[in-house]
Amino acid sequence: MEELLQKGRLAREASYYLSSLNTRTKNNILNKAAENLISERKIILEANEEDMKSAKDEGLKGAILDRLLMNEERIRAMSHGLMAISLLEDPVGEIVMMKRRPNGLLVGQQRVPIGVIGIIYESRPNVTADVFGLCLKTGNAAILRGGKEAFRTNKAITVVMQSTLYSMKIPQGTLQLVENTSRESAVAMMKLNQFIDLLIPRGGAGLIKAVVQNSTVPVIETGVGNCHIYIDEYADPDKAISITVNAKTQRPGVCNAAETVLIHEKAAEKILRPLADELKKKGVEIRGDQRVRNMIPEAVKLTDEDWSTEYLDLIIAAGIVNSPDDAINHINHYGSGHSECIVTENYTHAQEFLARVDAAAVYVNASTRFTDGYEFGFGAEIGISTQKLHARGPMGLRELTTTKYIIYGNGQIRV
Amino acid sequence: MEELLQKGRLAREASYYLSSLNTRTKNNILNKAAENLISERKIILEANEEDMKSAKDEGLKGAILDRLLMNEERIRAMSHGLMAISLLEDPVGEIVMMKRRPNGLLVGQQRVPIGVIGIIYESRPNVTADVFGLCLKTGNAAILRGGKEAFRTNKAITVVMQSTLYSMKIPQGTLQLVENTSRESAVAMMKLNQFIDLLIPRGGAGLIKAVVQNSTVPVIETGVGNCHIYIDEYADPDKAISITVNAKTQRPGVCNAAETVLIHEKAAEKILRPLADELKKKGVEIRGDQRVRNMIPEAVKLTDEDWSTEYLDLIIAAGIVNSPDDAINHINHYGSGHSECIVTENYTHAQEFLARVDAAAVYVNASTRFTDGYEFGFGAEIGISTQKLHARGPMGLRELTTTKYIIYGNGQIRV
Repeated sequence: MEELLQKGRLAREASYYLSSLNTRTKNNILNKAAENLISERKIILEANEEDMKSAKDEGLKGAILDRLLMNEERIRAMSHGLMAISLLEDPVGEIVMMKRRPNGLLVGQQRVPIGVIGIIYESRPNVTADVFGLCLKTGNAAILRGGKEAFRTNKAITVVMQSTLYSMKIPQGTLQLVENTSRESAVAMMKLNQFIDLLIPRGGAGLIKAVVQNSTVPVIETGVGNCHIYIDEYADPDKAISITVNAKTQRPGVCNAAETVLIHEKAAEKILRPLADELKKKGVEIRGDQRVRNMIPEAVKLTDEDWSTEYLDLIIAAGIVNSPDDAINHINHYGSGHSECIVTENYTHAQEFLARVDAAAVYVNASTRFTDGYEFGFGAEIGISTQKLHARGPMGLRELTTTKYIIYGNGQIRV
Repeated sequence: MEELLQKGRLAREASYYLSSLNTRTKNNILNKAAENLISERKIILEANEEDMKSAKDEGLKGAILDRLLMNEERIRAMSHGLMAISLLEDPVGEIVMMKRRPNGLLVGQQRVPIGVIGIIYESRPNVTADVFGLCLKTGNAAILRGGKEAFRTNKAITVVMQSTLYSMKIPQGTLQLVENTSRESAVAMMKLNQFIDLLIPRGGAGLIKAVVQNSTVPVIETGVGNCHIYIDEYADPDKAISITVNAKTQRPGVCNAAETVLIHEKAAEKILRPLADELKKKGVEIRGDQRVRNMIPEAVKLTDEDWSTEYLDLIIAAGIVNSPDDAINHINHYGSGHSECIVTENYTHAQEFLARVDAAAVYVNASTRFTDGYEFGFGAEIGISTQKLHARGPMGLRELTTTKYIIYGNGQIRV
C-alpha cells in the first residue's frame, strides 16, 4: 500500500534524527504540544462533534460513544499527560552495563530507541496524544492507525502535534496518522517489516488477536486479563473480603479486575458467606461450582467456559479448591498470565504462590487492580503486556527502548 | 498436528516443574549428561554414520557434510559445552529491582524462565546438546525440530540426554525431539502459541526468513550479518588494514565477518592500495565502486546489489565516501543491523558513529568478529539477535529468561 510505504520511509528517516535528539529538546516539544492542545482545542472539539454525529447516525451506543467523546476536560487530561511525560527520566542513552574484557576491549550495553513504532487502535482518541508523547520521549517515530469512527478527531489531534513539530523543525515523519482506515491499511502495517520495528495493538480482544495472528512485524500483546484471587486456608478474612471485592468491583471493565475467586475448602466455611454478601451488595453475580452452590444456594451454576472468561463486568466465577497446589494449577491452566493474587498469612504458601504462578504480576495480600504503570511508579504506561518477550506487565518508557552494544577498542583483532 | 500438541502439553507441564528447580540440581543434570555423552558416544557415532551415508547417497556435498559430521572430538566438545554451562551463573530468580511504593506495596521484578522454547534448526547436530544445556540451565523446556538429514544423530543425542533426565526423575517434557521432520511439523510449531513461548530458528537465511514470515509464536531472528568497516579520514593506517583484513578473512563464513569496506576519500590515497594488497594476499576478491577502481584497477566492478550482499566468502565490496555522515547513512541503509565498525583516531567521529549507527554492535577500532557471546563474556551463546525486541546482539543465558513482577502487600486495595 503506497501510503504506508511512504509513511514508513519518512518514519525511518525521522527515527535516525530522533535517536540523537537530546532530552531537553524532546521535553520542550512535549510542553509546547501540551500548550497547543489547549490553545487549539476548538479544532479538536469541532472534529469530534462530526465524529460523534456520524457515530450516532450509524447507531453506535453507550460505552463506545463515551470512548469516542472529546471534551474540554479530556483535552486538558491529554495536555497534562504530555507535560507529565516531559518530567519523567529519559531512558535513552543509559549505559546498562560496561565491562573491560581480557583483551582490553571495553564492551558496553546502551539503551537506545527501538526505531519506528506502529500503533493500531480503536476508538479512544486520547491514545493519539499519549502515544505521541511516549514515543517522542523515547526517541521513536510513530505511525498511528486509529479507527474509522474516530478519524476526524485523531486527525485534528495529529495536526496540532505536527504543527508543533514543524514549528520546532522536527521531521514530519516523527508522527504520522494513516489516512486510510480500511482493514487493508491495518494488514499492510502488519507486514511492513522493513519500516516498522514494533507493533502495539490497543483495543479489544478481537483486534489484538487479529494483529498477533497476522503480523510479521514483532508485536507486543496487551490487555487480556483473566485474573484470579486465591483465598488460602490461612487467609485473614477481612483482607480476603476487601481484596476480592476491590479487585472485582472497583473498576470491573479493565484488564486487571478479578474474574475468578478460588477459596480453600477450609477457608470457605468462614469466608464464603460474608464474601458473597459483600459482592452482592455491589451488584455482583456469583457463578459457583457445585461446592460453592452448596454453601451459596443463590449462586448461578458455573460451566467450564466460565473459568476462561474475562467478564469485564459485575460477574465473578467462584470455586472451592483443596490445596494451594490446586489453586496454582487452576490459575496456570485457565489464567491469561496477567495478574494473580493469593490472600494468606502463611509464609510458605505465599512464597510458593509467588514462585510457581506463571503471570506478569503475582500478588500476596493486595488487589490485582495495582497492575498499572502509574501504580508501579513508572509515571506512564503504553499498555500491559501479557506476553513474555521484551516486556511483561506494565510497559513504561523503558519498554519502548532496546539496547545496542558499543565497543571501544584500540586495534583489537580476533585470533 | 497430534505429535506437536502432545509434545507441547508435556513441555508446558515440564516447564512448571523446571521453573522452581534449584541451580544445584540443574548443574548436576548438566554434568551427568556431559558424562553420558562420552560414555554413550558409540550410539551417537553409529547413528551419525547412517546419517552420513544417507546424505552421501543423496548427493550432499562438502560443507553440508562437514556440518553433519560427528566424531569423537566433536562429542567431547559437546560434553565440555554442557560442563561449561554448569559453571555459569544461573540468572533465574535474580531480583532485577524492588521498590516500596507510597502505599506500602513492595513491587519487585524477578528473572524467571520463559517457559517452553522451540528451536528449528538445520544440519549441525551439536545444536541438540547445546540447546538442551542452555534451556535446562535457564529452567526452560525445549522442543527441538532438527533437519531430516541429521535426524538419527539428533535422536541419539536426545536419547542420551533423556535417559540422564529419566535417571534423575526429571519430567520427560524437559527435552523433546520432533520425530516428524516434514515441512508440516515446522509449520505446526510456528502456530503452537498455546504451548510454545519463543521460537528460535538456527540455520541459513532461507530458514530464518520462513520462520519470521510464518510464525505466530514470537520469534527471535538470528544470524544475517552484512557488516561494514568504515575507515575514517583520521584512521590509523595499520589499525585500518589489520582490522579490515581480520574482519574479512579470519573466518569469512560467519555472520560477524565484514562484507563491505567504506573508505573516506582522504584516507583512500594512503590506505587503499596497501589494504588491497593485504586482502589479495589472503585471496580476497575486491568489488569496487568507480572511485575505488580508479585507484585499484584490478578490482571487479561493483553493482548496487553488492552493497546488500552477505557474501560469507572471500569477497569484499569497497566504496569511497566523502564524510562520516555518508558512511553512517550507507550503513543504516544497506546494513543488516549486526556489527559495524569505524576505524578512526578522531574522538568526535568515533562518538558520532557509536551514537548514530543502528546495529546490534557498534565498534571503534576493533574487528567485527568480536560479536559473540563468548567474546563478550557471557560464557555461552544461543545465537546473535539482529532484531530489536527482547534481545539484541549475542544472546546468553539472561536472554533465555523473562521477568515477572512479584508484589508483597498487607491488604492494600485500590481506591
